[in-house]
Amino acid sequence: MLTTNTYKEVRMQSLRLTEGLSDEDMLLQSMPDASPTKWHLAHTSWFFETFLLQPHLSAYQVFDDSYQYLFNSYYDSVGERHPRPERGLLSRPSLRQVLAYREHVDKAMQQLLKQKPDKKILDALTIGLHHEMQHQELMLTDIKHALASNPYGLPELTPEANNNTPTDSTFTHFKGGLIYIGTDSDHEFAYDCEQPRHQVFLHEFNLRNSLVSNQEWLAFIDDGGYQKPELWLSEGWALCQQEGWQAPLYWRQKDGNWQTMTLQGYRPVHPAEPVCHISYYEADAFARWLDYRLPTEFEWEHAARTQPLTGHFADSGIWHPRQPEQQPGLKQMHGDVWEWTQSAFAPYPGFQPPKGALGEYNGKFMINQMVLRGGSCATAHQQMRFSYRNFFHPHQRWQFSGLRLAR
Amino acid sequence: MLTTNTYKEVRMQSLRLTEGLSDEDMLLQSMPDASPTKWHLAHTSWFFETFLLQPHLSAYQVFDDSYQYLFNSYYDSVGERHPRPERGLLSRPSLRQVLAYREHVDKAMQQLLKQKPDKKILDALTIGLHHEMQHQELMLTDIKHALASNPYGLPELTPEANNNTPTDSTFTHFKGGLIYIGTDSDHEFAYDCEQPRHQVFLHEFNLRNSLVSNQEWLAFIDDGGYQKPELWLSEGWALCQQEGWQAPLYWRQKDGNWQTMTLQGYRPVHPAEPVCHISYYEADAFARWLDYRLPTEFEWEHAARTQPLTGHFADSGIWHPRQPEQQPGLKQMHGDVWEWTQSAFAPYPGFQPPKGALGEYNGKFMINQMVLRGGSCATAHQQMRFSYRNFFHPHQRWQFSGLRLAR
Amino acid sequence: MLTTNTYKEVRMQSLRLTEGLSDEDMLLQSMPDASPTKWHLAHTSWFFETFLLQPHLSAYQVFDDSYQYLFNSYYDSVGERHPRPERGLLSRPSLRQVLAYREHVDKAMQQLLKQKPDKKILDALTIGLHHEMQHQELMLTDIKHALASNPYGLPELTPEANNNTPTDSTFTHFKGGLIYIGTDSDHEFAYDCEQPRHQVFLHEFNLRNSLVSNQEWLAFIDDGGYQKPELWLSEGWALCQQEGWQAPLYWRQKDGNWQTMTLQGYRPVHPAEPVCHISYYEADAFARWLDYRLPTEFEWEHAARTQPLTGHFADSGIWHPRQPEQQPGLKQMHGDVWEWTQSAFAPYPGFQPPKGALGEYNGKFMINQMVLRGGSCATAHQQMRFSYRNFFHPHQRWQFSGLRLAR
Amino acid sequence: MLTTNTYKEVRMQSLRLTEGLSDEDMLLQSMPDASPTKWHLAHTSWFFETFLLQPHLSAYQVFDDSYQYLFNSYYDSVGERHPRPERGLLSRPSLRQVLAYREHVDKAMQQLLKQKPDKKILDALTIGLHHEMQHQELMLTDIKHALASNPYGLPELTPEANNNTPTDSTFTHFKGGLIYIGTDSDHEFAYDCEQPRHQVFLHEFNLRNSLVSNQEWLAFIDDGGYQKPELWLSEGWALCQQEGWQAPLYWRQKDGNWQTMTLQGYRPVHPAEPVCHISYYEADAFARWLDYRLPTEFEWEHAARTQPLTGHFADSGIWHPRQPEQQPGLKQMHGDVWEWTQSAFAPYPGFQPPKGALGEYNGKFMINQMVLRGGSCATAHQQMRFSYRNFFHPHQRWQFSGLRLAR
Repeated sequence: MLTTNTYKEVRMQSLRLTEGLSDEDMLLQSMPDASPTKWHLAHTSWFFETFLLQPHLSAYQVFDDSYQYLFNSYYDSVGERHPRPERGLLSRPSLRQVLAYREHVDKAMQQLLKQKPDKKILDALTIGLHHEMQHQELMLTDIKHALASNPYGLPELTPEANNNTPTDSTFTHFKGGLIYIGTDSDHEFAYDCEQPRHQVFLHEFNLRNSLVSNQEWLAFIDDGGYQKPELWLSEGWALCQQEGWQAPLYWRQKDGNWQTMTLQGYRPVHPAEPVCHISYYEADAFARWLDYRLPTEFEWEHAARTQPLTGHFADSGIWHPRQPEQQPGLKQMHGDVWEWTQSAFAPYPGFQPPKGALGEYNGKFMINQMVLRGGSCATAHQQMRFSYRNFFHPHQRWQFSGLRLAR
Repeated sequence: MLTTNTYKEVRMQSLRLTEGLSDEDMLLQSMPDASPTKWHLAHTSWFFETFLLQPHLSAYQVFDDSYQYLFNSYYDSVGERHPRPERGLLSRPSLRQVLAYREHVDKAMQQLLKQKPDKKILDALTIGLHHEMQHQELMLTDIKHALASNPYGLPELTPEANNNTPTDSTFTHFKGGLIYIGTDSDHEFAYDCEQPRHQVFLHEFNLRNSLVSNQEWLAFIDDGGYQKPELWLSEGWALCQQEGWQAPLYWRQKDGNWQTMTLQGYRPVHPAEPVCHISYYEADAFARWLDYRLPTEFEWEHAARTQPLTGHFADSGIWHPRQPEQQPGLKQMHGDVWEWTQSAFAPYPGFQPPKGALGEYNGKFMINQMVLRGGSCATAHQQMRFSYRNFFHPHQRWQFSGLRLAR
Repeated sequence: MLTTNTYKEVRMQSLRLTEGLSDEDMLLQSMPDASPTKWHLAHTSWFFETFLLQPHLSAYQVFDDSYQYLFNSYYDSVGERHPRPERGLLSRPSLRQVLAYREHVDKAMQQLLKQKPDKKILDALTIGLHHEMQHQELMLTDIKHALASNPYGLPELTPEANNNTPTDSTFTHFKGGLIYIGTDSDHEFAYDCEQPRHQVFLHEFNLRNSLVSNQEWLAFIDDGGYQKPELWLSEGWALCQQEGWQAPLYWRQKDGNWQTMTLQGYRPVHPAEPVCHISYYEADAFARWLDYRLPTEFEWEHAARTQPLTGHFADSGIWHPRQPEQQPGLKQMHGDVWEWTQSAFAPYPGFQPPKGALGEYNGKFMINQMVLRGGSCATAHQQMRFSYRNFFHPHQRWQFSGLRLAR
Repeated sequence: MLTTNTYKEVRMQSLRLTEGLSDEDMLLQSMPDASPTKWHLAHTSWFFETFLLQPHLSAYQVFDDSYQYLFNSYYDSVGERHPRPERGLLSRPSLRQVLAYREHVDKAMQQLLKQKPDKKILDALTIGLHHEMQHQELMLTDIKHALASNPYGLPELTPEANNNTPTDSTFTHFKGGLIYIGTDSDHEFAYDCEQPRHQVFLHEFNLRNSLVSNQEWLAFIDDGGYQKPELWLSEGWALCQQEGWQAPLYWRQKDGNWQTMTLQGYRPVHPAEPVCHISYYEADAFARWLDYRLPTEFEWEHAARTQPLTGHFADSGIWHPRQPEQQPGLKQMHGDVWEWTQSAFAPYPGFQPPKGALGEYNGKFMINQMVLRGGSCATAHQQMRFSYRNFFHPHQRWQFSGLRLAR
């Protein structure tokens, strides 16, 4: 469980992620789904101010009344909020003011944590830190999207030595049966949506040992995968045509070769790396192309529990998926890329969101979204659990999302 | 199983549904989701022509080459098609020509069925008839939507004697366990999406004996149900505000009283009748309001199998839900209104769509849609099975959709 | 001036235009700018009922109260109205009812006109008849647009003998000066927007003797006219790209040859005919391509008054522009196609709309529209005057609109 | 005429306007019509680089090749350009780089101007400086719009002493006749659209001595001006309802009183000041409310030439219109607010845009825009001429636009 001594570390990590970004970069909002870096820095502080300092630190002075309105994300029960698509127009407060806000909140938090916090406070603290780690990932994905919209100033990187090992296409067999899914919050922190732990019946299944790689994706492209309606879900095909999808997000062709954009700049697509920045629709079409399918989130969780929870996470500072190690069995179950599952984000049997504003955390998004599992190269290691459920709409591509096959 | 002697009966029923409609009425298309009556009449004939007559009746003369393009609904593998939102512009071919098309197809079908049809043909025939019954329901829901868009010519009906029995709010308990779901196609016809029959583990649950009634919905309205964001899924709340929802579709206030539109005209909302024409978002918000939830499709199917498959279907000619009988236990599990479940429309383990165009029937819609169960007062009785899965988007309201609570 | 004995004739002409159209055709509305034939038939009757019968015929019985709402076009002062884009959903009242409405109005009108109508009534009658003739033209342009949206049932016509005389590219010179523009309503009927007659100073100018022909337009296409931004107004270029314009509306390529749709069907583009169905943007770009310009409406009117007011009008029953006669001097100033001018539709000095609802006839449209002059092959001859001003938005193409060059 | 010694002064003024703005403020783009301050700073430099330095300074080194693409506004003949609505995403190049770009261009320009520039160069220089002054006005109007979108950080100002003199509602009479309009470029610089000087025939008219004031506008509001369709042009009324207009842009009600936003903050609406930030539709409706009309641009120019060209311009540093002096006759013809005229922006007889890219300056916008005359409190004094024609779409409100009545 995250405790008081991790507060400082998590908060500092958010600032570390902004290295190399200017005040202007941190104001960018390139689509309503994404938010400016500065907004993330402010909103995560607002979270501590709203759910910890205001209710629990008696002499706490609110930094600025307006921030309540400006930096609320979606908590209807907390009050009105600034419209999401206009977060990029918040030149004021300035970045400097937002950083002062962070310091103000951090000082007050240290005061609060000195006062022998009770379980209620510790629980809110834990959520606040997990919440901040979630936003750290969004800071990376959102600034990547924003920088991609402006061709200027992204260098072309020297290609790395191309270690093009063929993708391991073997599968691991699982015999299924009645298994347990979800977490038991007595032992570790978990969001409401991972609870309660409950039984699920699984049929026998096979899970691919490796993630789908760029070399496989290139074959899909070459075989006309983006031109064959029979491979696609109906809504996916309509979107594919409307948006003119020809490759994953951030890929571009230059002199006949595919390049991909990373947070460091453009470089050639590396065949052995896992494919990344694909929508559910693309993942699903790819699986159908090979007569496989995506796993359910239950199959995935069941399989993941056979492995240690290790992997390539954001802590490495390399925010791009890496090619797998040469090893038998399941590889890269955690880290590198989020794995789309065929499970819609739905409540577990007996699901109960907490009362109050924090009850708005997950439950109200349980429609039209698909579960992704395993974390990515932009996720904090500390944030991961076997039961962790991420969720996005099937058309969204700007997360570090890839896939693993099942059958 | 549907056999050759039901062909005539099913086809005639489609025409019976058009009684009282003019040529002009049958051309109306009031939104892209809906189609003109005339288009349904033609498309269902196109289905038999395309999947039965052309491949299996040697001397068959296609009625009109252009119909292949005009009356294909969504079968990509069959070729190009007329854009869906423009079906209401098809004044040509005329209704008379479409009726001649139906006769032409019917004659040829009788010829085909005389020739000792093999299993392949019989299977396609069965699908064709079920397909036609599905479109019969759409004929009713679509013309209802179209007529509602034009205030002219819908009479106000004399209110019936108001037998306002309080809604039965008792529940039936089910103890759950490992159960079977889906159909075994050896015994009866079923769509691919109902297959394969497979085991699911159910937790203990309770299911309300009655459908949610209009009197309960009026209480929800009176309690501000349409104004409280905390009851709603996030996307549902956004839509509710954007569309200004205040009541189910087809309700209107007149002199302080709620009226609802039926296919016969406007009449007062009857408190004891099941609520109808609500979106998933509304159903879900209503359940949350009472601290209940919607059932899963598996809970529903498990419970439904304890009852005879009877109910108030389209065959009655009364295309409006009726108040329940006074009886203990589960009521109106079939007929009257489709019941929203909390299950996303997803493939069953081992799901395999058939090869060819008919494989486009269900699988390609398995995203962003929720399962509804039980059939409605606009569904043909013959079409229903315990395993039948209907599916619509959570925002759609023009089907005869209601809800039953679970916990 | 139109008098009582023309009433019958004008009203019959509206019905004559519907020959060959089915009930279903007459319900089509293919875009919000256009209206169903049936709606035109009803609206023109509503005009007489509202502005003549109700105020002036004492015992007049309104045919149906709802029609007031359903068939008002845009007269705010008359009350609420049915939303324009939903006119195509008015299957009820039926065509038969609308025809009965016409008869009802016609009978009452005959009664009114027998009663020695005073000037006020005669003035309103004259407007009503001109209004009906305007709608006759719209009936033709609107049904053409609707039928074009449905590929079914439009035959390919045998090409006529191709008399491909080169276009007469000579100009007539006018020396300008202080001239009179507009009409004097003492001598003939004219809309408010043609008044008052007033002086305008014209600079010396030259006007092309012939309309721009299809053979010239084909040269424009061949020279990349639709691909060169430098020829276009900025908004026109944006629209051209967005809509993918490559040729006038209703042109299509078949086996490498251009065809155009007429109300009778598709036939080859005839090089010697005037080009038709072009937007202001296209007309303006074409003129710039040849280093000419469009005339102002004052230049046009000044020149037109040197010619007899004759030409090819709707009365011919041939609703397609014809190639010009071999004659020197200005040709086809009236009839065949409306000629775009470079004049925005604006009030004349001293313009005064009449009080009351008929004041909404022209004045409230004096923004963002350009004046067209001369009438077309779809205009009634009787409707034309030298001072007649038609007006449409620069992007609109479904009228019979062409151009004549000036410099 | 602007000469070499004004170059430095004009360029410095652009920077002076950015005082008090942060790097983040200067990146804001709150609508596609507006551009970020930084973009204006870069684009005006790009103009000198493209039209003066590259063609005329032999050893000139382009500052950065990418700027050609990033900072082209709309010159199609110069090449591709960054999409207008995404100018707010250009965090890179940074503001610092853009300022370095300005210095780089300024140094090179000084070099060029030392070399005895010929007429061609001087002409381009003059255009470049006028172009920069135009963008100075846009810098003010665009940042005002951007700051208005963010409630944070705009102070409420202490109301000034309220000198509420009644508006002077007298008119000056002009007898009309054949007059000259436009400029003769031999005597002073003028844009192509002000040429050639030519004769226009004016009818007798009266022009109000004063601008319409806020006190008159408040009376319009109180009389339901925003609720009466009969006052409005048809498209204006539709927009008024759609956008929910109740008052000029930047007005808000606080505790029952109207406030307006200035570039310094919010303050009470001052009754004696000219009304500002209104659309053409509002100006036109207001005039109709009082049974007046807007003047034509020719009437305006004719009247303006009777007055000295003085007024309250941007040079004052007070970017808000001021109440008029107490004096008889025409007041505030120049400065304070742009005055909507009823003239569409159209070519003068014999209009010829220059060849090449600068020919794209005005001519390609001559559609759907209305002429405004007289300059505003955000216009440079030096930029004004009697013949100056500004133009905007009738729906636009973010310029300093007001009105003067005529009859």
